[in-house]
Amino acid sequence: MEKIKGGVTAAKGFKAAATAAGIKYTDRTDMAMIYSIVPCQAAGTFTTNIVKAAPVKWDQKIVKESRAAQAVIVNAGIANACTGEEGMAYCSQTAKKAAELLNVSEDAVLVASTGVIGKQLPMDKICAGITAMAPQLTDTYEAGHAAALAIMTTDTHEKEVAVTFEAGTKTVTIGGMCKGSGMIHPNMCTMLSFITTDAAISKELLQEALSEDIKDTYNMISVDGDTSTNDTVLLLANGEAKNPKITEKNADYEAFVKALNYVNTTLAKQMAGDGEGATALFEVKVIGAESKEQAKVLSKSVITSSLTKAAIYGHDANWGRILCAMGYSGAVFDPEKVDLYFESKAGKMQIIKDGVALDYSEEEATKILSEPEVTAVADVKMGDATATAWGCDLTYDYIKINADYRS
Amino acid sequence: MEKIKGGVTAAKGFKAAATAAGIKYTDRTDMAMIYSIVPCQAAGTFTTNIVKAAPVKWDQKIVKESRAAQAVIVNAGIANACTGEEGMAYCSQTAKKAAELLNVSEDAVLVASTGVIGKQLPMDKICAGITAMAPQLTDTYEAGHAAALAIMTTDTHEKEVAVTFEAGTKTVTIGGMCKGSGMIHPNMCTMLSFITTDAAISKELLQEALSEDIKDTYNMISVDGDTSTNDTVLLLANGEAKNPKITEKNADYEAFVKALNYVNTTLAKQMAGDGEGATALFEVKVIGAESKEQAKVLSKSVITSSLTKAAIYGHDANWGRILCAMGYSGAVFDPEKVDLYFESKAGKMQIIKDGVALDYSEEEATKILSEPEVTAVADVKMGDATATAWGCDLTYDYIKINADYRS
Repeated sequence: MEKIKGGVTAAKGFKAAATAAGIKYTDRTDMAMIYSIVPCQAAGTFTTNIVKAAPVKWDQKIVKESRAAQAVIVNAGIANACTGEEGMAYCSQTAKKAAELLNVSEDAVLVASTGVIGKQLPMDKICAGITAMAPQLTDTYEAGHAAALAIMTTDTHEKEVAVTFEAGTKTVTIGGMCKGSGMIHPNMCTMLSFITTDAAISKELLQEALSEDIKDTYNMISVDGDTSTNDTVLLLANGEAKNPKITEKNADYEAFVKALNYVNTTLAKQMAGDGEGATALFEVKVIGAESKEQAKVLSKSVITSSLTKAAIYGHDANWGRILCAMGYSGAVFDPEKVDLYFESKAGKMQIIKDGVALDYSEEEATKILSEPEVTAVADVKMGDATATAWGCDLTYDYIKINADYRS
Repeated sequence: MEKIKGGVTAAKGFKAAATAAGIKYTDRTDMAMIYSIVPCQAAGTFTTNIVKAAPVKWDQKIVKESRAAQAVIVNAGIANACTGEEGMAYCSQTAKKAAELLNVSEDAVLVASTGVIGKQLPMDKICAGITAMAPQLTDTYEAGHAAALAIMTTDTHEKEVAVTFEAGTKTVTIGGMCKGSGMIHPNMCTMLSFITTDAAISKELLQEALSEDIKDTYNMISVDGDTSTNDTVLLLANGEAKNPKITEKNADYEAFVKALNYVNTTLAKQMAGDGEGATALFEVKVIGAESKEQAKVLSKSVITSSLTKAAIYGHDANWGRILCAMGYSGAVFDPEKVDLYFESKAGKMQIIKDGVALDYSEEEATKILSEPEVTAVADVKMGDATATAWGCDLTYDYIKINADYRS
């Protein structure tokens, strides 16, 4: 597997475009389009929130029922959530407009929205945006990059990644882009992520690979514990790599799964590190667990703890809050056996041994915690299972961004 | 039932004292003592966190095994949590010292601590504090008030309440004090609360009344979603009201339960409203629910949502976040049937009807949300059950307090 420069246009046969439709933002692009030159197998995973945005409902139907997907239309600024029948009608109108211009069927068009809940989309602007983007579609790196920029809301930077791997004699590419960065507590995921690949693979295995992988990637990040109404991961495979079609769990499938995991992990970590107001990516590894499920519950509880997140912002080695968050997670362990370490580019040090603090240097600990990426490792000494979760610190800017997001 | 001025010394036969022991704070009192002139029936409820502080373990044993409790020793500044066997030994030493000075048995002394996790108590200061307080014990209002001040940590004001009710021909009093104000997500409760009553009541009914009542009071508040290692509610009944002893669920028991609920609700709301950094008490009522459990899950999910709490701080009628938080709560309902109202001293207005926003005035909504106590009422139109949860807004000061709490 090799990491390459690129995003959603890295895989063969995928094009993208972006435009400034003026939906909410007036000084930037806010719509993106992804298009495959041939029909794709589509897989998707969606929010578990009972309040599902209209585009989520639309895409769930397309992924389940449509034989092939070929385009994705995304807008930032308005989420099209809690918008009733009118919101559903707008998904259909969006797909219809794109279908006309791209000469594909309406049920080959996926849609995604992110932004304020409860407002209706300005359909004239959406349609004008689609009309502007369709003739601009290209397969360049720049087009994919422009799309990654256009889907941002409170994100501070675009998020994209691409890798290649070999399947048979062919090189297969997987690329993707995503956006955060608030209401991030995936379950499924809590954000928008779009992955494209030129792999030839059956729809069943494509969905299985995605459904399994999100459990270790997007579902292991949290910015604020709020599971969004719009969470969507879409994975499109168009077969343009011309590899022997993956229809069983052979070595090619394993290579595909591994590459997909790299893409999703990279995007998930980018999202966590760019959480609203965040100054640091906070990684929590639980090792020595009895089961993977136990390790996941423990690690997610820590990255979700407001008190722990505030301590990370203060570069404060407040390990008591980490043990406390593990303690209320619901997972069973013996607090008096836990070892805890802090780790970053500045070094690694043990803080707790068997549940009690060592005589460590606070100064040294603060130095380790002052890096932009910090890791806490908790060893619960019960078995061999491990899990990693990613979050961010809780800062003044999170409050600033969210105290008056709508204005 | 009548509300009266007072706290833990309001009920007959209870005395209190406070002192500045210099455990962590140098400019204020930080230890309190409660004492009953006669042995009490004791009931208690404690944190569900697996990581339990030493005083929690100590009190659980006393409440379960001891025939009578007569004193409570509380300190602020150090939580005596994650302190291993040394921490347990300190509970025993504290009880022993108090027992000697008060002439009671060691297993009649309850202890409670709040503050930093992982540090050992300075036993010389604790013992000096007990020695200073014992001769100061009095049953005045001022003594109870001094105790309520001494147990504060990041609280901005003391919290106490007292009521009387009639049982037979006798007047029974229940009074209490508590402290918050971070790591507050009770389950059991997440704080310290001490309730004293002169009611004559059996130990079994005392515990049952408390265990039932916390589900609707302390367990319905949240400041930050973090369930503390030290949460403790203690309820002491000394029988000094000389009422006919309550040994069955008769009218006197109902009156006791009602008064206890008032005391606990008042203290719980005071804690929520004085959450770390809070500028407003945020009350969420769910009505029209299928079951009380459903209403509780929905209302707690909303008061726990960081995004909703930040919006309340911004006086922003961001109802989408409320619906979103209900949606990921795990409770099943139809989002397209929900009505939502905002209410405060400044007025009441409907924001959503059947899941879709009404054409309400943002200006008017902001006015309603600018009060120090604001309520959101969500009607899910499924039945007759209701529940109320209490939280607070999420502010810059929460971050400030918690980014470097230990220094």
